[in-house]
Amino acid sequence: MKRICSALLAGLLLTVLPILSGAGTGPDRPSKYVDPMIGTSGMGHTFPGACVPFGGVQVSPDTDTIPHNVGGKYQAEVYSLCAGYRYDDPTIVGFSHTHLSGSGHSDLGDILLMPTSGTLHLNPGTATSPESGYRSRFSHGTETAVPGYYAVTLDDYGIRAEVSATPRTAVHRYTYDAGAKDGRHLVLDLSHGIYNYEGKTLWASVRMVGDSLLTGYRITQGWAREHYTYFAIRFSRPVKDYGCKETLNSPYKGFWRKFNTSHGFPEMAGRGLACWFDFDWDVGDELVVNVALSATSVEGALKNLRAEGAGRTFDEIRNAAANAWDEELGKASATGTEDELRMFYTSLYHTMINPSIYDDVDGAYRGLDGAVHQADGWNNYTVFSLWDTYRAEHPLLLLMHPDRARDMALSMLHHQAQSAHGLLPIWSLMANEGWCMSGYHAVSVLSDALIAGADLDPDRVMDAMVSTSTLPYLEGVGSYMEKGYVPLEDSSTGASTTLEYAYDDWAIYKAALYAGKDSLARIYKERARSYRNLFDGKSPFARARYRDGRWKSPTDPRQTYGEGFIEGNSYNFSFHVPQDVEGLISLMGGEKRFLSILDTLFAEPLDPKYYEDNEDIEASCLIGGYVHGNEPSHHIPYLFQWTSEPWRGEFWLREIMERMYRPEREGLGGNDDCGQMSAWYIFSAMGFYPVCPGSGEFVLGAPFLPEISLRLDNGKTFTVKAPAVSSRNRYVKSVRLNGRPYTKRYLTRDDIIRGGVLEFDMTSRPRKKAKPLPSDLPYSLSREM
Amino acid sequence: MKRICSALLAGLLLTVLPILSGAGTGPDRPSKYVDPMIGTSGMGHTFPGACVPFGGVQVSPDTDTIPHNVGGKYQAEVYSLCAGYRYDDPTIVGFSHTHLSGSGHSDLGDILLMPTSGTLHLNPGTATSPESGYRSRFSHGTETAVPGYYAVTLDDYGIRAEVSATPRTAVHRYTYDAGAKDGRHLVLDLSHGIYNYEGKTLWASVRMVGDSLLTGYRITQGWAREHYTYFAIRFSRPVKDYGCKETLNSPYKGFWRKFNTSHGFPEMAGRGLACWFDFDWDVGDELVVNVALSATSVEGALKNLRAEGAGRTFDEIRNAAANAWDEELGKASATGTEDELRMFYTSLYHTMINPSIYDDVDGAYRGLDGAVHQADGWNNYTVFSLWDTYRAEHPLLLLMHPDRARDMALSMLHHQAQSAHGLLPIWSLMANEGWCMSGYHAVSVLSDALIAGADLDPDRVMDAMVSTSTLPYLEGVGSYMEKGYVPLEDSSTGASTTLEYAYDDWAIYKAALYAGKDSLARIYKERARSYRNLFDGKSPFARARYRDGRWKSPTDPRQTYGEGFIEGNSYNFSFHVPQDVEGLISLMGGEKRFLSILDTLFAEPLDPKYYEDNEDIEASCLIGGYVHGNEPSHHIPYLFQWTSEPWRGEFWLREIMERMYRPEREGLGGNDDCGQMSAWYIFSAMGFYPVCPGSGEFVLGAPFLPEISLRLDNGKTFTVKAPAVSSRNRYVKSVRLNGRPYTKRYLTRDDIIRGGVLEFDMTSRPRKKAKPLPSDLPYSLSREM
Repeated sequence: MKRICSALLAGLLLTVLPILSGAGTGPDRPSKYVDPMIGTSGMGHTFPGACVPFGGVQVSPDTDTIPHNVGGKYQAEVYSLCAGYRYDDPTIVGFSHTHLSGSGHSDLGDILLMPTSGTLHLNPGTATSPESGYRSRFSHGTETAVPGYYAVTLDDYGIRAEVSATPRTAVHRYTYDAGAKDGRHLVLDLSHGIYNYEGKTLWASVRMVGDSLLTGYRITQGWAREHYTYFAIRFSRPVKDYGCKETLNSPYKGFWRKFNTSHGFPEMAGRGLACWFDFDWDVGDELVVNVALSATSVEGALKNLRAEGAGRTFDEIRNAAANAWDEELGKASATGTEDELRMFYTSLYHTMINPSIYDDVDGAYRGLDGAVHQADGWNNYTVFSLWDTYRAEHPLLLLMHPDRARDMALSMLHHQAQSAHGLLPIWSLMANEGWCMSGYHAVSVLSDALIAGADLDPDRVMDAMVSTSTLPYLEGVGSYMEKGYVPLEDSSTGASTTLEYAYDDWAIYKAALYAGKDSLARIYKERARSYRNLFDGKSPFARARYRDGRWKSPTDPRQTYGEGFIEGNSYNFSFHVPQDVEGLISLMGGEKRFLSILDTLFAEPLDPKYYEDNEDIEASCLIGGYVHGNEPSHHIPYLFQWTSEPWRGEFWLREIMERMYRPEREGLGGNDDCGQMSAWYIFSAMGFYPVCPGSGEFVLGAPFLPEISLRLDNGKTFTVKAPAVSSRNRYVKSVRLNGRPYTKRYLTRDDIIRGGVLEFDMTSRPRKKAKPLPSDLPYSLSREM
Repeated sequence: MKRICSALLAGLLLTVLPILSGAGTGPDRPSKYVDPMIGTSGMGHTFPGACVPFGGVQVSPDTDTIPHNVGGKYQAEVYSLCAGYRYDDPTIVGFSHTHLSGSGHSDLGDILLMPTSGTLHLNPGTATSPESGYRSRFSHGTETAVPGYYAVTLDDYGIRAEVSATPRTAVHRYTYDAGAKDGRHLVLDLSHGIYNYEGKTLWASVRMVGDSLLTGYRITQGWAREHYTYFAIRFSRPVKDYGCKETLNSPYKGFWRKFNTSHGFPEMAGRGLACWFDFDWDVGDELVVNVALSATSVEGALKNLRAEGAGRTFDEIRNAAANAWDEELGKASATGTEDELRMFYTSLYHTMINPSIYDDVDGAYRGLDGAVHQADGWNNYTVFSLWDTYRAEHPLLLLMHPDRARDMALSMLHHQAQSAHGLLPIWSLMANEGWCMSGYHAVSVLSDALIAGADLDPDRVMDAMVSTSTLPYLEGVGSYMEKGYVPLEDSSTGASTTLEYAYDDWAIYKAALYAGKDSLARIYKERARSYRNLFDGKSPFARARYRDGRWKSPTDPRQTYGEGFIEGNSYNFSFHVPQDVEGLISLMGGEKRFLSILDTLFAEPLDPKYYEDNEDIEASCLIGGYVHGNEPSHHIPYLFQWTSEPWRGEFWLREIMERMYRPEREGLGGNDDCGQMSAWYIFSAMGFYPVCPGSGEFVLGAPFLPEISLRLDNGKTFTVKAPAVSSRNRYVKSVRLNGRPYTKRYLTRDDIIRGGVLEFDMTSRPRKKAKPLPSDLPYSLSREM
């Protein structure tokens, strides 16, 4: 195996390196290992297009337009198009500017541009008959996808299409084959969207300003209930002719009917609006289009255009995007095979797409209340897929991007202040609450950040947490506060929700202790024990209950649906007690039974009947009955550290790494879920994982690469070494921290932050003999009770 | 006939009078003569509800909800509901907050509130079956309508409903009959509107904040293409329970389906949204609701609520509204019979409803470009029905409200700067261009104001005028500039449009002279002569032409439709050459023929076949063939002053006054058209009229009342006396200005502005003998050629 060493200081060096047009492809640039195509087929739901780290614009090709909804009926196939791009599709519909990375439900795909030639079409056409619309066939051989840059040849039109991005703008370069210049069009389809349906665009309005500037906005009602996208688009060539078609006609046109508003009329508006633009092609074959977005106003988009788009060539923007990625990716350096480095850096890349900046260059942003607010001294972020990302994505951001993590915490606190419910975000999506999944996991992120010392007002944080966790009509919270569990009558997923609330309450408890709120701490400590109310004293698995205390019966712990759990059966979800693993072990019948259940989970194949009807699980997401494709299980392999046989976890961790993270298009064993799956990979590759965010502890596992170094924000470096590691040498023989033998089963945040070297001695022979439990296992609430 | 003298200084005295709860009804208050019910039946299209002078909120009962459009088909009956209220309707649907005064096309009716009791209905029901919805029967005997206050008893619910207003807020007081308190509801229907259709509300969003504040907005697509109405509503009682119904369901609800968003859920939103609120009624039977509107944001509405609604009782607001009206109405004092004073002050009242303030208390306003702008040191106005109001309404405002007139001019200039077309307003409607009717008459208003010395930048004014009058795709302007007329191929009303452009161009010519732009002046002087291109040298009437110069043939000068004219046949419209009456007389064949045509116009009844299919003309709008119900004719009776027989005009003026302005509900001989019809009355009652705005001349007619005094902004008073005037004594024998015989046939603005007394000696015997023409007739372009 050929090992390649990427330069630790690549990111630092970049600032003095001359800017080359081949940005991102040089030998010392970590971005060269990133393959944005990984995850674009199968379950990954990643997009191959261009953005900068945490950028608010993700410009990417969309390959189909299957409606989310036809006549009120959900179209299951749309699930595979969450990212807009589906590798197996033969055509590209166009390039839109907003995309979620790896989500399992979707939206956006705002402001679609598509260059065409020949007959003008203002509808996308169909994949089987692309000539009936503006879409084009393409072949993957013509694609280039690297961080901050994507290119493809649109075969039907002979156009080389390239896109790049800044935080708030995109740049497109369309180069036509020389030759006939007649019939070159640019289509702007404001009715296009991901998870689209007829009428999703509530209103679109476009204004031609002079001959090369276009401004406008659209409002959509999708997963984001009221989603405002303002834009400013500058063309590198004067527009010679233009027009539009309103595909969803209103019964009333007013006196606009006096004009031919469909041709050369500078105010185009409607509910289903597609526009076209023809340019002056006297010289050259290239059209560059800068597109700035804003959620606040056209003026906001113009500010963003002036600040980030204006006066820069396509290549300058592309180079800057590549440099930004190299800067961020360069914070980690790793050794490994080419494939291993591709997977490592691609994962790292996927941890830096969402959450995304959601403000204008001057700090103006649209808040959850729909009003325009001002962020002074911080950036507002959106896309908090918190049910997923509280687990590893946010802990990784807190470690590697503490300033951004603090801004994200502030974004959450402002979201809470702007909420009609006084609620922290559940699933924050473009100034909307998306209400997807359960728990109130923002408290985990805030608690972790607060305790880590982020510059946050503890009183404000506590107020937001308490307000959130006491809202009676939030998925059974009222009953939960009264009974200690969420009854099935209140929520069909009451059991898993109870487990989630209990952990979240523990996070609040820890924050309250930190903030010196002792009486609150007592209340939430008690609430954190609520998970116990789901164990009946006989079954080792959590069970759903009714309001009167009865248990749901019969139950099938392997069945995901209808049993009181969400995206995880009881077999997996019962382990969701990160705050008190010792207590859980005891409830499950002691270490021996716990170990047996754990091992069986991984070893015993799950009958396909349990998942064949579920869109979010395929065999490829499973290891035995362990579901890596959904998040509730992510910490489970680390639970072996609470037993005398951690080698078993080391075995399964390697299995997960090798089977769920293959550097291939269909290589991701589940939706990447806005970076959570990838963050799991990054931590696990380093040999530790935040089983219980808020504890400041990272539980040891088994490293995956020979060496990984983190360049921390404080200037320190933390390096993990495991020179002998391999698929065979997957077991940990011993550990040294800064040269000294290390016997604890976890690291603390401080161990990492102060810098140092963690060395794993790896071996092919597991120490199957029971390993005595150290006195201080990772966090356990039990010991405080 | 009992004559009553209203106090000239009533308005001044009011500021030191103690505030009484019976505001507006005292003996010295001119508002007591105002009857807002005048015009609410028949053609008037006025509304009876409450507003303050030029206020942005007009809160008024709406009596039906006939959709403008059903399945794309216009519903003719909706025309009679332009003002929301139709006197002959038996039920009231509710109270909405925005209304046009006297328009012939409509929109608005935003934010409907309706108190009910008993079974909760969230649909309006029908007039024939009111119990099927939230509407209520009512009888006119329970109505009180005075300036700034309206009250009615909702019979079906035993509720006394009262409303009043401030510039940017409304206040409602609903008093239930004592007794059963169960089932008292307040309905907020955000799908209600005037000229409504299913789907007109693009989006509505409501948020319950605490237990007595409601915020939200709706966006409608109506005559105002993108109309944003934000609101903040404060209840005097805590809300005990609430909910909503979305009547126009989207196929997609996202994860909001987790909640019962229809009951007790503080975020209510959708396309067809109706909400209900139940209150704590432990004590009392009265509910007061303050409603603030804003076009910019919820925050803007809250600012307006705090500044104008908060901390004031219903009666305080009502008194302030009455005082504001008395202050403005008191600027004119008149003597006459009770009926004459009712008609005079009601007309004056109607001249001060539109244009309306359209900004927040801090000057923030939504501009034509959709962006939020800031007006510093001026107020932004909307509702410029310019085709109507340039004639007399704006000249009256310039005379009586010069500060407001200047702000209106600034509003127009900013509109132009924000226009995608660089166009001054045609029909400005809530930050939208309504495109209704023809011409670019804002130039008339601006020219008149500029020349009168308003504080405007002449260069800016000229730029806006030139930009507007040279836009080739504006209704034939391109052809007009090339050929000197608008061909029928460019506009089906090309002939009348040509006449209008020619006058407007004269206004630009005058402004250019004033601004010292001589070359521009030359161009527009030439354009102002374009009216001549419609006279074929044989017919005395203007005729429509084709692009190749051919005349439309055959033509029928009495036919309004299909002949190249709009809202006026050629017989009337041919006189639309106010800038060059002498030239017109010559084209028509000299004075004798001119007089004969003029007299025939008034004397010869129009065959009903010419108007029976037209919704905007009834027999009641006609005097012979003269159509007072539509504006192009308004100056015609004054054209007799260019002849040797002005007595004929004096005769017809009296006829118009008596027949078109009866102080009765159905007494208005046409749509009041945002004050134009009423402003005509005010001028004509004083015995002079701005035949050619921009000339600074007011052509003499025949006064209608014994005495009218104007209290001018500069502290001067201008008084018109005609002590002997009566229906019989309708003819002018002689005139004195400030005691000296006056033989000119017009006054200048300076004559009025410097104050003085104009005395008419009236007689019952017309001086039929030809009266020699004075050397200086009112304005004529001809003499400058």
